[in-house]
Amino acid sequence: MADHRIAAIIGSGLIGGAWSVAFARAGWVVQLYDNRAGAAKQYHSWAEATWRALVTHGLLSKTESAQAQKLVRVCDTMSAALEGVEYVQEAVAETRDVKSAVFADIDKDIGPQAVVGSSSSGIPGSEFMDNCANRARMLICHPVNPPHLVPVVELVPTPWTEPNAVETARTIMSAIGQTPIVVRREIGGFVLNRLQGALLNEAWALYEDGIASLDDIDATVRDGLGLRWEFMGPFETIDLNAPKGIDDYAARFRKMYASMGNGRKKGPWSDDIIKKATAERAKTLPRGALADKAKWRDSYLMNLLAFRKSQKG
Amino acid sequence: MADHRIAAIIGSGLIGGAWSVAFARAGWVVQLYDNRAGAAKQYHSWAEATWRALVTHGLLSKTESAQAQKLVRVCDTMSAALEGVEYVQEAVAETRDVKSAVFADIDKDIGPQAVVGSSSSGIPGSEFMDNCANRARMLICHPVNPPHLVPVVELVPTPWTEPNAVETARTIMSAIGQTPIVVRREIGGFVLNRLQGALLNEAWALYEDGIASLDDIDATVRDGLGLRWEFMGPFETIDLNAPKGIDDYAARFRKMYASMGNGRKKGPWSDDIIKKATAERAKTLPRGALADKAKWRDSYLMNLLAFRKSQKG
Repeated sequence: MADHRIAAIIGSGLIGGAWSVAFARAGWVVQLYDNRAGAAKQYHSWAEATWRALVTHGLLSKTESAQAQKLVRVCDTMSAALEGVEYVQEAVAETRDVKSAVFADIDKDIGPQAVVGSSSSGIPGSEFMDNCANRARMLICHPVNPPHLVPVVELVPTPWTEPNAVETARTIMSAIGQTPIVVRREIGGFVLNRLQGALLNEAWALYEDGIASLDDIDATVRDGLGLRWEFMGPFETIDLNAPKGIDDYAARFRKMYASMGNGRKKGPWSDDIIKKATAERAKTLPRGALADKAKWRDSYLMNLLAFRKSQKG
Repeated sequence: MADHRIAAIIGSGLIGGAWSVAFARAGWVVQLYDNRAGAAKQYHSWAEATWRALVTHGLLSKTESAQAQKLVRVCDTMSAALEGVEYVQEAVAETRDVKSAVFADIDKDIGPQAVVGSSSSGIPGSEFMDNCANRARMLICHPVNPPHLVPVVELVPTPWTEPNAVETARTIMSAIGQTPIVVRREIGGFVLNRLQGALLNEAWALYEDGIASLDDIDATVRDGLGLRWEFMGPFETIDLNAPKGIDDYAARFRKMYASMGNGRKKGPWSDDIIKKATAERAKTLPRGALADKAKWRDSYLMNLLAFRKSQKG
């Protein structure tokens, strides 16, 4: 394995597990560490099913899957996991205390070059990387769950992260087939959840005001906006939606969009409307069927990725 | 053709043309009328290419395409087009004066049962249907461009539209394979553009504040959010993103989303930022390549629809 690049993944739950697949699939040796009792056993059973599913859905051949799977090593200690790595991905529980403790441990044992990314989805890196001697090489690398199926990774530097560490993380993420994007400053929700939040806040407001049902709002995205956004972002979409491009589009429609921004205040989603929405969702999808539906979602997502792959071929 | 249902399409430009394909593909006879000189010739050349593309992309067989194409009749007069129809779809220019005049004409000649839908994307129906004797059977049926490829249709009643006219329109749209959604009251931007606008306004703000590049914001949607929203709406997405469903998700994250709503005011997109965005887009896609890229988009969209079809078995 001398010619393989090596990454450590700290935390082998669903996110860490998915990271291990993303790296190993790209030919990296993965050194996995998790200090929770029983973590290794859980990981192996999850990994077995996950590698199999990638084959079933046409995303990897049997041989590719078997070879990649062999590249993952479960380690007994943090220092064994960090041995010789050029990159570390932290994927432990999302609390500041847990992340602080893990980052202190990584900081002690890390080699002089490796870059360290945190999977934090909301806690800014500056709140748990601040005491690390190597904080110049640490940043947020926030995946979408699960990272082996959803490519985007948000890179968010702290005030101390050196630009070349961001660049290294970006290069590594691209190398393993993820889509890294750079969030230039720490900002609540980063980019992805701010965009999702803007749409969700509007969706809740429309629902609360009785403008449309939950199912109809969902259908508007699924069979309307989502058909564009699956392969083009919002700017590319509008760039192609007026004959002369994005400025032409803005000239035609910015007044309309500005008028929608005014008016109703969008506060936090209220208890009452959440209760009503839950009842409405339960009619569409009985609560006992949630877990099965989540399996359907993962399976559909893999089929969609296989379709994307066919479009690139 | 005695067993065929009949629809009139008024206006045979890109939207009306696409409507004619959507209805004929579902086995309806389409009576098409456009009073502009040369409209019929333009329509035939567009239709020829469009029916062919549906076959090329695996959405119709050659036979299906040929049979459907024969169901479209170009009529010389409005009254000929309205003869014996159960549904009328208006697709003329998006100005109040043009729509008012066309609705007055439809109103005169329409039979005693037919429902009339307008393709208006922004002008509320109450502003041009108000003087019609048959206004109780008139409403907005707003498609996304082009309706033969993007299924969602927003049904927006005026204050005078009778509920059973909305229900009829919904049934007809479902019957031809569109996805009708009901917007219960006239509201600026209806549902689709309000959702798109909320996300766009946030995207422009993030870009203006220097948080991320245009391309990175696009990638966040394309390789992140869009991978969910292609097959699930925003509510279904969050319903499946917490173990116990949508209320569980709200309990975990509503505080985070509420905090993002505050802070920065989102005004209209400024001239300066539009200029900057245009230059950045031009680097990604030279302005001379816009038309070709739009063709790529339409082709990808048809491939994506063929994939969807395969998923339904």
